[in-house]
Amino acid sequence: MGIYTDLAREAREINPDILGVTEQEEQIGDVNISRIEVQSQQASDELQKPCGRYITIEAPTLSNRDTQVFKQVGELISKEFMSLLPNQGQNISVLVVGLGNRGITADALGPRVVEKIFVTRHITEHLPDIIGKPMRAVAAVAPGVLGTTGVETLEMLRGLVERVKPDAVVAVDALASRRAARISTAIQLTDTGIHPGSGVGNSRMGLTKESLGVPVVAIGVPTVVYASTISQDTIQLIAQEAGMNEEAEKMLNLADQVISEHYGPMIVTPKDIDTVINDMAGIIADGINIGLHREYYSQVEELLA
Amino acid sequence: MGIYTDLAREAREINPDILGVTEQEEQIGDVNISRIEVQSQQASDELQKPCGRYITIEAPTLSNRDTQVFKQVGELISKEFMSLLPNQGQNISVLVVGLGNRGITADALGPRVVEKIFVTRHITEHLPDIIGKPMRAVAAVAPGVLGTTGVETLEMLRGLVERVKPDAVVAVDALASRRAARISTAIQLTDTGIHPGSGVGNSRMGLTKESLGVPVVAIGVPTVVYASTISQDTIQLIAQEAGMNEEAEKMLNLADQVISEHYGPMIVTPKDIDTVINDMAGIIADGINIGLHREYYSQVEELLA
Amino acid sequence: MGIYTDLAREAREINPDILGVTEQEEQIGDVNISRIEVQSQQASDELQKPCGRYITIEAPTLSNRDTQVFKQVGELISKEFMSLLPNQGQNISVLVVGLGNRGITADALGPRVVEKIFVTRHITEHLPDIIGKPMRAVAAVAPGVLGTTGVETLEMLRGLVERVKPDAVVAVDALASRRAARISTAIQLTDTGIHPGSGVGNSRMGLTKESLGVPVVAIGVPTVVYASTISQDTIQLIAQEAGMNEEAEKMLNLADQVISEHYGPMIVTPKDIDTVINDMAGIIADGINIGLHREYYSQVEELLA
Amino acid sequence: MGIYTDLAREAREINPDILGVTEQEEQIGDVNISRIEVQSQQASDELQKPCGRYITIEAPTLSNRDTQVFKQVGELISKEFMSLLPNQGQNISVLVVGLGNRGITADALGPRVVEKIFVTRHITEHLPDIIGKPMRAVAAVAPGVLGTTGVETLEMLRGLVERVKPDAVVAVDALASRRAARISTAIQLTDTGIHPGSGVGNSRMGLTKESLGVPVVAIGVPTVVYASTISQDTIQLIAQEAGMNEEAEKMLNLADQVISEHYGPMIVTPKDIDTVINDMAGIIADGINIGLHREYYSQVEELLA
Repeated sequence: MGIYTDLAREAREINPDILGVTEQEEQIGDVNISRIEVQSQQASDELQKPCGRYITIEAPTLSNRDTQVFKQVGELISKEFMSLLPNQGQNISVLVVGLGNRGITADALGPRVVEKIFVTRHITEHLPDIIGKPMRAVAAVAPGVLGTTGVETLEMLRGLVERVKPDAVVAVDALASRRAARISTAIQLTDTGIHPGSGVGNSRMGLTKESLGVPVVAIGVPTVVYASTISQDTIQLIAQEAGMNEEAEKMLNLADQVISEHYGPMIVTPKDIDTVINDMAGIIADGINIGLHREYYSQVEELLA
Repeated sequence: MGIYTDLAREAREINPDILGVTEQEEQIGDVNISRIEVQSQQASDELQKPCGRYITIEAPTLSNRDTQVFKQVGELISKEFMSLLPNQGQNISVLVVGLGNRGITADALGPRVVEKIFVTRHITEHLPDIIGKPMRAVAAVAPGVLGTTGVETLEMLRGLVERVKPDAVVAVDALASRRAARISTAIQLTDTGIHPGSGVGNSRMGLTKESLGVPVVAIGVPTVVYASTISQDTIQLIAQEAGMNEEAEKMLNLADQVISEHYGPMIVTPKDIDTVINDMAGIIADGINIGLHREYYSQVEELLA
Repeated sequence: MGIYTDLAREAREINPDILGVTEQEEQIGDVNISRIEVQSQQASDELQKPCGRYITIEAPTLSNRDTQVFKQVGELISKEFMSLLPNQGQNISVLVVGLGNRGITADALGPRVVEKIFVTRHITEHLPDIIGKPMRAVAAVAPGVLGTTGVETLEMLRGLVERVKPDAVVAVDALASRRAARISTAIQLTDTGIHPGSGVGNSRMGLTKESLGVPVVAIGVPTVVYASTISQDTIQLIAQEAGMNEEAEKMLNLADQVISEHYGPMIVTPKDIDTVINDMAGIIADGINIGLHREYYSQVEELLA
Repeated sequence: MGIYTDLAREAREINPDILGVTEQEEQIGDVNISRIEVQSQQASDELQKPCGRYITIEAPTLSNRDTQVFKQVGELISKEFMSLLPNQGQNISVLVVGLGNRGITADALGPRVVEKIFVTRHITEHLPDIIGKPMRAVAAVAPGVLGTTGVETLEMLRGLVERVKPDAVVAVDALASRRAARISTAIQLTDTGIHPGSGVGNSRMGLTKESLGVPVVAIGVPTVVYASTISQDTIQLIAQEAGMNEEAEKMLNLADQVISEHYGPMIVTPKDIDTVINDMAGIIADGINIGLHREYYSQVEELLA
């Protein structure tokens, strides 16, 4: 069907019967947390997602912009995020990488999160006693995109990781979803890193333990959908309601071709994406900041204000 | 079919046989200019567009971001824009109004154009001789939207128009189109003013000669589409290709209902809307500035740099 | 001496012996609140400040960017601000006006505050029962400056005030101080409105009860100093330390002339003005929002998130 | 006297008699170009500027914001800039580095220039034939500052330079001047790299050929002055006019102490710094872009629009 998604949860929805995948769901009030583990290479190939853990937090009430829900989801992210770090010790160092183009709102989630990260690496190096207890060393960069820097993100980060030697990289990026409704309401966390483009094949160019030499936890939020998936979903929904199996099959077979001829690979985002990015950047930065600095959060907040 | 569009050209495409409408097309290189006049009240009711003139400039090559095309389209806008002003004398005064919410990129076209307008009203009042010839008096405001000001745009502008007493208002706004392809490539100019929402019924709340007391020329660019129209278009295209008239009819009848249940009134914009708004704001401001100040353009440009 | 200041407290410091002025100081922790009332026309002429009340909140620890101090000062502003409103009833309506040019950081305090104001006028008009108790009707506009709109601020606001009919206007503006140290640490509130430029003479062009027809409370923060005052202060300080009365007198007499020849009317702002404006806009908006909506603050915050 | 300046021209003005320095001046219309070469280690120590070439372009008419002057100065920068590159061949690669904090306007010159650089490295690598002749490979990054990334700029760049292997680094930064009048009107170019802080001593932490392994051309614009220099200059000017040598000497001796007690190390910038940074970023980016891509400038401009 040629439907692309960055979310393991959606890949799984489309292929619910593949073996080698474990799934678990948890409901906390209005928030759903799904935990998927891709365990076999065959499952990985079929889902087009590398082996590893995928946690999706879905909070439909986020779109109401209620500050209580923002806080709740930030807290949930902080816990899930820390659970994906291979080492959670108080002396670890972490490099937060905000991927994407800060000039394109729908792609600016990463850089906006980086602006809100409590950066402490220079304090731990130069003023280790200022806090009075061990503090995790956090650095944060937004390396830009190939089109505006002329340098591949991986090239940019390899040299940096060699010098900063973090215990883990946390990569934040905007994702493509199959369902527009997930844009303001879902967050995916994974220990498999970032795999740009459509699959796991070119993992050499992704940001992964293999390419960077340190574990990479990725946190992403859907911000765009392919226009074609909106049409495909509609046809399927109509076909279901009308019981038109045969005709729908025929139409879906034509859809890809017709859509790509008339629309091209059009990628869309909600009209209010500015608000979504702003809210989500705050929630994810809260999750990372609270997770890494929980023990002395209020102190750090003041110190770095 | 419940399909909404702000473009008279699209309303006409859907209803090509309605009487009381004149149409004319002109092709200049890659640029198409369509001139529609809605002449009878019946045509107005059926197209849901007030009587008056609608000029649509379509330049598909704008999406290549070629500066030569930008200049060409700016020049075309300047001519069409001036042709819609009832009085083009050298002593007129014009109030440019940038509608929309500057915090929502897809809605920020108006405020961004206003930032680029050569404002001269204070110069003509206080330093009339600085240029050495008559200069049109241009003022420019971005009044914000009800949700962020608490004041209706019309309330905001009525008092201002009473005091500034311009010969014409030029209102710039972002529009909704039926076709995503028009988002970066079409500009509509009309002498009928601005009619918020879906029709001509509530003209009392629009920005029109009736409500403001002076002629209102509106310039708009499509920046958003209803997600539902993407689906509806796809179904129609598929049905055409496959010759599935009956089933398609059935599907289209279901589409509205299914889409509104599953998507709600979702409005989308292209992923690169930041770039589109930036380019289009520059082109439209060029059109207005050149049109109003052609006689001493280089001088004014310097004076107001 | 030709020293200009927007702060009544500074005008008083320079002229401590003028009659017709009452003064009172209060110290709350690190925060100093001074309350000055200019009571006679003669005092007004000598201080170049109109008759009325001037409250200056000075919090030197604001420059440490401690969130606790931000909250404390926001709360103090809310009380002093409300005390200056002639009518504090639950049914009043208020128009908040953010003066200044949003494109010049040091002048952008007003527009930035307006972005953070809880606007409720449209809710009280259209959905009066949504909160369940009376809610003050708050509107907010940033009218821009003459150079970018071509329209005098007073012209812009008169028409608006006539239509919106608020019980009071609250005008927020950036001020000029004599002392750079006050830039990130002082807030002046007054019931005398806004008097642009150097004096009380041209009150016709100010934003005052006389010009707008409703009471005007002004809230301002020093963001700029004249470069010449930095020099003049230095000379005075040196003269004091060195006991060089005669030579200092001679130098101060020359200072004005020399400075204006060599520097012109240079106005400077601290290097980190972006941070100052951001912090101060938040604190002042908090003060206004809490003051006007204290009874249902948490509800409104949620409603308008 | 403890007066700090980043401009070799100003250091020379204060110490006009030091040996081991060559100077040359050229006047082109309203523009003055000064070329200083620090040739001996002793001169370097006394001027606190490393050995090498320093070109200062001063164009007082830049502050009038005349687009013709902008173009003229951009063209002059392009020539002087290219003359400082050790290798000007058509096949060289260049890494443009925009230093400074994009969130502090007065410090944002570097990042703003980077946004306007024509980046071609990815095109030369992946599509070498698109232009039809050799094209210099230009990459551009804005690495941020220690306080927001937690990583020293030098650490950040070393890894990048090792991988990108440019023939030269071009570092753009905001400078401190002794004279506020130079802020909107002077550009310094040098082949000695960047030396943060007050001297040449800690060249290890600077961005230089020694620390990065490739030649570093630095382009800077004064954007800030120490408040204390405004006072010191005033005292000197007054003393000169009044012929008060003895008293002035006494005052200047006290100035440092009095100023640092009462003002601290206050650094100021003109009120309209937003406009200055915007204009200067455009002019410097023009200079770099034209210099590196002159042969096919119009083509590249179109290609990268």
